[in-house]
Amino acid sequence: MSDKINIVIDTIGGDNGAYVCVKGALQGIKNHKDVKIFLTGHKSEIDLILGECEYNKDQIEVIDCSEEVSLNEPPVQAVREKKDSSLVVGLTLLKKGEADAFISAGSTGAILAGGQFVVGRAKGVKRTPLAHLLPTSGEPSLLLDCGANVDVKPEVLVQFAEMGSIYMKEVCGVKNPRVAVANVGLEEEKGNSLVKAAYSQLKTNKRVNFIGSIEARAIPYGKADVIVADGFVGNVIIKLYEGLSKMILRELKSAFLASFSSKLGAMLIKKSMKKTLRKFDASDKGGAPLLGLKGLVVKIHGNSKEGEVISAIDQCVSFVKNDVSGKIIKGFENSEE
Amino acid sequence: MSDKINIVIDTIGGDNGAYVCVKGALQGIKNHKDVKIFLTGHKSEIDLILGECEYNKDQIEVIDCSEEVSLNEPPVQAVREKKDSSLVVGLTLLKKGEADAFISAGSTGAILAGGQFVVGRAKGVKRTPLAHLLPTSGEPSLLLDCGANVDVKPEVLVQFAEMGSIYMKEVCGVKNPRVAVANVGLEEEKGNSLVKAAYSQLKTNKRVNFIGSIEARAIPYGKADVIVADGFVGNVIIKLYEGLSKMILRELKSAFLASFSSKLGAMLIKKSMKKTLRKFDASDKGGAPLLGLKGLVVKIHGNSKEGEVISAIDQCVSFVKNDVSGKIIKGFENSEE
Repeated sequence: MSDKINIVIDTIGGDNGAYVCVKGALQGIKNHKDVKIFLTGHKSEIDLILGECEYNKDQIEVIDCSEEVSLNEPPVQAVREKKDSSLVVGLTLLKKGEADAFISAGSTGAILAGGQFVVGRAKGVKRTPLAHLLPTSGEPSLLLDCGANVDVKPEVLVQFAEMGSIYMKEVCGVKNPRVAVANVGLEEEKGNSLVKAAYSQLKTNKRVNFIGSIEARAIPYGKADVIVADGFVGNVIIKLYEGLSKMILRELKSAFLASFSSKLGAMLIKKSMKKTLRKFDASDKGGAPLLGLKGLVVKIHGNSKEGEVISAIDQCVSFVKNDVSGKIIKGFENSEE
Repeated sequence: MSDKINIVIDTIGGDNGAYVCVKGALQGIKNHKDVKIFLTGHKSEIDLILGECEYNKDQIEVIDCSEEVSLNEPPVQAVREKKDSSLVVGLTLLKKGEADAFISAGSTGAILAGGQFVVGRAKGVKRTPLAHLLPTSGEPSLLLDCGANVDVKPEVLVQFAEMGSIYMKEVCGVKNPRVAVANVGLEEEKGNSLVKAAYSQLKTNKRVNFIGSIEARAIPYGKADVIVADGFVGNVIIKLYEGLSKMILRELKSAFLASFSSKLGAMLIKKSMKKTLRKFDASDKGGAPLLGLKGLVVKIHGNSKEGEVISAIDQCVSFVKNDVSGKIIKGFENSEE
């Protein structure tokens, strides 16, 4: 690693185009003088945006790519064939050690495939989970896996618990993170066969502070710092969080338009209500790192704006400074494959 | 079946005691002149409540029971051993054909076990799912299974789809109900091995109007009338719905107390906000029937009040009048075991 932290931002694939990536990157290098950002994508387009801005030229490098990975193509094939795409070029920099982190708002499938095939899993890591910070009434909880691995074995959930604990400790500063498994009840005999087997392994695992099961109704109350689930269940949780929060907001808005007094009332509470509901927008918590790879790959929401790009850069800086990848690699190198 | 609809209400096991069950029953018989209600539980306690009310004595019968099934005891054992509990006595009336439906706010585990062992599965039915109406921005969607069967085979999900379709058609009056499987993506190749296999079976099933997968973020928008999932995933969905809705309401309330203007605003919007948030309270949609048994067993929320007991009675009346049990039994009697 050079004395600078090198972060690649893939400027292709997000709903809001290269503009939000470039603007986010420029704010990121202002916030972090020790960060250099590589922007992969269409150079002409990126240069046009950069041309209108003032910034420290030493902290930005544009890498022109001739190919694009689209949302609709088969991910594995796309990653294998499109060597000059902004995604594969960026991940290759990470693989070679020329970058410390990679951020993309592109296709989740392609990012997962690229993480596996281009960057590669750390030794001993069985599966690489997508980890998401979930908003709660207290501090955010880390949910993993949010959709990378839908069919897993119990020992994989145990590894997720270990990786999640390292992440929460090193990136979020939580001492002795409380780890729970998403379940249908609190008693040890509750759960499907996967969760029951994982429960009994977690109970005796000395590397995590396992507090038992968490029912879905308790998740919004922040009762655990790390919540482990298979990628199917985790994906249902993260997406229901997103859908239900948005829906309730929309319904409230239309209810407020129903009468004159409620319209007036809505004006008066607008500010405090917005603040609360923003808290529950899962997409607003920065990116979702794919843990357990040989380098840091962060997936941000497809419709990310400048703000999310900036948070993802902050997150990468903490991750790299605290050597989270290194700690995960070290923690697993002696595990059996 | 007599010309009356006979419904048993188990008055023990709910958080709010016998009072809400008895009061709900009295309103139920006022609403439905053709209903007779059997109240199982502690006769002395029930009679005390009845003594204060005026009602048609022909429509209420109290059955004294000497035992109680508590929330903390192993369900199967409780059902086997406590023959004179309000739960087992009530289910036995159903089994014998002396009652058409059974409602309880008691332990879910014990109700499920009692349904299986006392009432019994209909011929051809592989598993009996707990079905819940989920509030959405449109009409409610029926989610099944909400937690009765956590490890299932693909053909079980297909049966859930068939039973759910019959229920939505006959009880909720939905013509040609749209059936979807809860999934992590919309494309056919998405999902865990269970869902992928169920998808391909549902696609060619002529008894249901299968519209494909539904992602969790689309569930609150009412994009399907029937949503099938294994009991683990379904339980996560129903409980997260409940927890997140309550949480957002609580956070909004405390945000409104933050300033004078927001307090004033909150007074003005109180009514329309309450209405909206009540819509999203999953516990407010009556009971959850356990489908596929030889009789109708309805589980209501542990903290149900009079209103939920009344909705559950309405639901039982529709169910019995439309002979939903009979239609499910007929639909499956030729299936392979």
